[in-house]
Amino acid sequence: MINHQFRLAERPVGMCQRSNWNYTEEAVREPGDNEVLVKALYLSLDPAMRGWMNEGKSYIPPVQIGEVMRAGGVGRVLASKHPSFREGDHVYGTLGIQEYATLAGKALAKVDTRVAALPVYLGTLGAPGMTAYFGLLDIGAPKAGETVVVSGAAGAVGSVVGQIAKIKGCRAVGIAGGKEKCDYLVSQLGFDAAIDYKSDDVKKALRQHCPQGVDVYFDNVGGEILDAVLTQIARHARIVICGAISQYNTTTGVKGPSNYLSLLVNRAKMQGMVVFDYADRYPEAMRDMAGWMAAGKLKSREDIVSGIETFPETLLKLFKGENLGKLVLKVAEE
Amino acid sequence: MINHQFRLAERPVGMCQRSNWNYTEEAVREPGDNEVLVKALYLSLDPAMRGWMNEGKSYIPPVQIGEVMRAGGVGRVLASKHPSFREGDHVYGTLGIQEYATLAGKALAKVDTRVAALPVYLGTLGAPGMTAYFGLLDIGAPKAGETVVVSGAAGAVGSVVGQIAKIKGCRAVGIAGGKEKCDYLVSQLGFDAAIDYKSDDVKKALRQHCPQGVDVYFDNVGGEILDAVLTQIARHARIVICGAISQYNTTTGVKGPSNYLSLLVNRAKMQGMVVFDYADRYPEAMRDMAGWMAAGKLKSREDIVSGIETFPETLLKLFKGENLGKLVLKVAEE
Repeated sequence: MINHQFRLAERPVGMCQRSNWNYTEEAVREPGDNEVLVKALYLSLDPAMRGWMNEGKSYIPPVQIGEVMRAGGVGRVLASKHPSFREGDHVYGTLGIQEYATLAGKALAKVDTRVAALPVYLGTLGAPGMTAYFGLLDIGAPKAGETVVVSGAAGAVGSVVGQIAKIKGCRAVGIAGGKEKCDYLVSQLGFDAAIDYKSDDVKKALRQHCPQGVDVYFDNVGGEILDAVLTQIARHARIVICGAISQYNTTTGVKGPSNYLSLLVNRAKMQGMVVFDYADRYPEAMRDMAGWMAAGKLKSREDIVSGIETFPETLLKLFKGENLGKLVLKVAEE
Repeated sequence: MINHQFRLAERPVGMCQRSNWNYTEEAVREPGDNEVLVKALYLSLDPAMRGWMNEGKSYIPPVQIGEVMRAGGVGRVLASKHPSFREGDHVYGTLGIQEYATLAGKALAKVDTRVAALPVYLGTLGAPGMTAYFGLLDIGAPKAGETVVVSGAAGAVGSVVGQIAKIKGCRAVGIAGGKEKCDYLVSQLGFDAAIDYKSDDVKKALRQHCPQGVDVYFDNVGGEILDAVLTQIARHARIVICGAISQYNTTTGVKGPSNYLSLLVNRAKMQGMVVFDYADRYPEAMRDMAGWMAAGKLKSREDIVSGIETFPETLLKLFKGENLGKLVLKVAEE
């Protein structure tokens, strides 16, 4: 059985592109003791992947040159030498951008397709959902009646942040690119308002939609939008630094938030978070999220593109803002 | 009796200068009911004054054109129609840059020259000392054994921050400009190390003096130094945004911290503070600080310049980094 893979060929300068990877093939490796062979069905494409391609210290080691590109994924067990898994089980793990992964069983978690469809485990019930849950509730700590603003609001993390804000009794305002996304946020997800950064004056729209100021800002994008929100924060505001997709492909240096002194004026804080720190509490979040989904309070949407060979171009949808909901690469039929 | 005053004439663009004020004179106003006439002895010169000269929303309204320049000060009561004060009392209040101030008694606080000399009430036992105390202990929340870095370390706030850090069992590293200041921090104030940003490579020096990373950074300066420290923070670091003296006179826009994504990588926070919020707790801080001073653990130093007419040029010492300790304008003999 042949395994097709994308392996990192070189570190990108600026926007990543197909030539940064080699599309390779090799024989599938049979599992050894305590290992499991998984056939990848859906792979998760995330903005953070761009960061993993860079050299240097971060919250996780970089992908090495020659290594299979790191990616979370869900798949089906084809063969197992680990007591917890058997053929046919559905599992989540860091499968990488490849058709088959042979991994230690302890690095896998079973997923239950009766609770949610497989792609949901890469989005709302996966790392993006956990990021939204803990970033908003633990770092943002919104109180009912407060105003929560989220950027990248139509993405996998942002769409969940806004919906949890509503569940917690807050006013939810999303910032996204384009009318389709903005309409979706308000009409489908129940956001109170959406700001189209491509056509609206963001500062002015924030003043309009957040008349009491922004109490919690969940930032996925950085750059000009972070700076605009900083001018509109309320006293004691909390800014959650989850990501900065606008800055990941820069070749001219990251744009720092010029308006950061608004933190001083408003006695506000800006705090970074990495979802892995909350691993011990995932079950708690999963219970809440699955419950909200079952109750119809939390909607999950995936943007599924088929074909492992499309990986480089599909990934770029994130940086072009072309995805609506969680971007997923479908590798094989369930 | 004639009162000389500096009144704001225009809002500065870039560095403030003498022509931004008018040096005026008028008759001293006798106190009305519940008012007190104070003869100014020492006036406090602070970096924040530059911000008060700007138009626009901040944590305090701007000084209006034509208004006496805002400044804290200590003086002697010449006449009182308020029951709590009598002639000869020493008081602290927002006297403004003038020789005499006629103010509501409720806006004044008595100071005790048996506890400390008058200028100390503008520094270590005044707003700068309170800023250091609450900013470090409440926002920075250092634990014994942690590393605390402070910029503007030879100034009124920074010198107290480093000393309190030592009192709390931390490693204290100061960043200041020039050998004299750095020597003073280590040999007189007991800092563990000092970094001369004018001659040292700040990043490299931080790596050397903070081998475990920076747990708390108390920032008075912003700009390049904030960015350098961001590269060296430890996981869960706390950055206290107290001021940004390097940015107050900019004509090209504030430089935001390009390395702010280090907050994400290190799960760190950056939080602003304004000392006025702690007014209810000043007595608690004053007791601690006076106790530490009496025990010889906390040293206070003032840089005293005589002559109200020198105000514009004396204020510039702050922005040129020429003061060592709290900059005070002496207006009259005690």
